[in-house]
Amino acid sequence: MPDHANPTACLLVIGNEVLSGRTQDANIKFLATRLGEIGIPLREVRVIPDIAETIVATVNEVRARFDHVFTTGGIGPTHDDITSECVAAAFGVPWEKHPEAWARLDRHYRPGEFNAARQRMATLPRGAELIDNPVSIAPGFTIGNVHVFAGVPRIMQAMFEVLAPKLAGGAPVLSRAVHTGEVPEGRLAEGLAAIQARHPDLDIGSYPYYRLTGNGVAIVAKGTDVAAAEAAIAEVAELMRACGGVPIAGEPAA
Amino acid sequence: MPDHANPTACLLVIGNEVLSGRTQDANIKFLATRLGEIGIPLREVRVIPDIAETIVATVNEVRARFDHVFTTGGIGPTHDDITSECVAAAFGVPWEKHPEAWARLDRHYRPGEFNAARQRMATLPRGAELIDNPVSIAPGFTIGNVHVFAGVPRIMQAMFEVLAPKLAGGAPVLSRAVHTGEVPEGRLAEGLAAIQARHPDLDIGSYPYYRLTGNGVAIVAKGTDVAAAEAAIAEVAELMRACGGVPIAGEPAA
Repeated sequence: MPDHANPTACLLVIGNEVLSGRTQDANIKFLATRLGEIGIPLREVRVIPDIAETIVATVNEVRARFDHVFTTGGIGPTHDDITSECVAAAFGVPWEKHPEAWARLDRHYRPGEFNAARQRMATLPRGAELIDNPVSIAPGFTIGNVHVFAGVPRIMQAMFEVLAPKLAGGAPVLSRAVHTGEVPEGRLAEGLAAIQARHPDLDIGSYPYYRLTGNGVAIVAKGTDVAAAEAAIAEVAELMRACGGVPIAGEPAA
Repeated sequence: MPDHANPTACLLVIGNEVLSGRTQDANIKFLATRLGEIGIPLREVRVIPDIAETIVATVNEVRARFDHVFTTGGIGPTHDDITSECVAAAFGVPWEKHPEAWARLDRHYRPGEFNAARQRMATLPRGAELIDNPVSIAPGFTIGNVHVFAGVPRIMQAMFEVLAPKLAGGAPVLSRAVHTGEVPEGRLAEGLAAIQARHPDLDIGSYPYYRLTGNGVAIVAKGTDVAAAEAAIAEVAELMRACGGVPIAGEPAA
């Protein structure tokens, strides 16, 4: 893997709905892409259920192993929304009324509508810093190196863009790619391994594709040194030609 | 969570391409759904990179904690395909030529094309049992409670359907749902918590939705006892009515 000098990230997707197959996750790809762009590459994702002991243990394990932990899901008003109190338990701090979050939600709801369930969304781990929610008011928060987002993609994305400028990232992780429809990856493999060995700071991946317009393989080089990625991809293109293929710059059309 | 008597499953998605955001995962939802149907509910997913120490350590951790572990990705012919040798290392067995896999691939390729890179796809942990690949020949395999699939969704799905009849599942996990466009979940929350408390063997989730046709909330009850799920959802519908909403059976249209 490249970019050893960059800070690292882990994502916890919290929610039974992904584990049951009800919901197609849409947060992993967004966060993976954006975190690479700001130089905090995503190193691991865990999808875990709405079980308090599991959430607490997992938060504590991964916050010790990664520079940043992002969580999605479980910060709404219903009984299955337990992320916030579990993060408080993981940090060993009280879970208590947050005056600013409380004031924002109290203003938002009509008189009498800021009920006990909704008040849970303004109850946060002591020491939490709010992450504004430009979509639906109820904020996310940061405590230590853990950043707690909503699970609804539109809200999660808005919260991420609020937080991102405050994160000290490293060099952006960039990629260059080339593909060919005429050479199976099994024939490129030996040459690819040699190219990867010559570029240990890059992460070179080989991804077969199956399209109505034809099958083929895309080779992607990722790293923080764009010149190195371009040089490696030029070597891959040469390898494709040597194997009788026609290299085409970039990824294949979707 | 319901269905304590059922065997449990963990999925390892192995591959830098999901962690970099290049690839939208399409395997979690499929396996989550099918595993629920055969009564081996998915309890955790991890997405991990193509790093040998990470794969070995993760396989060993989760195979001790779950009844079944499924892996996707990393069994092709290229340098970044290291799942098979890592599973051998995790089990502490030799990684060696598998005669039957070797024979299948040798028959499949034209003379001289079954090269060293492709021979890696016929090199498996000692004791592995093949999982047929009806799409592209190179097999997956089972060793102990670990089932190793390809990452390409079409191939992974075919391998799963080959394996599924051999797995001893529990009672299928079923779901019933009701939704309403007129009541925000914050007003249902207190009543929902009471319904969940009355049905501890069900897993009742509250999922807001945002559609061009209108916003609302879907309530889903999951478990192995369909009569209990139907009873709980009837109580939720009554709760929706009591809050001034019109309950509509099932999930909202996509």
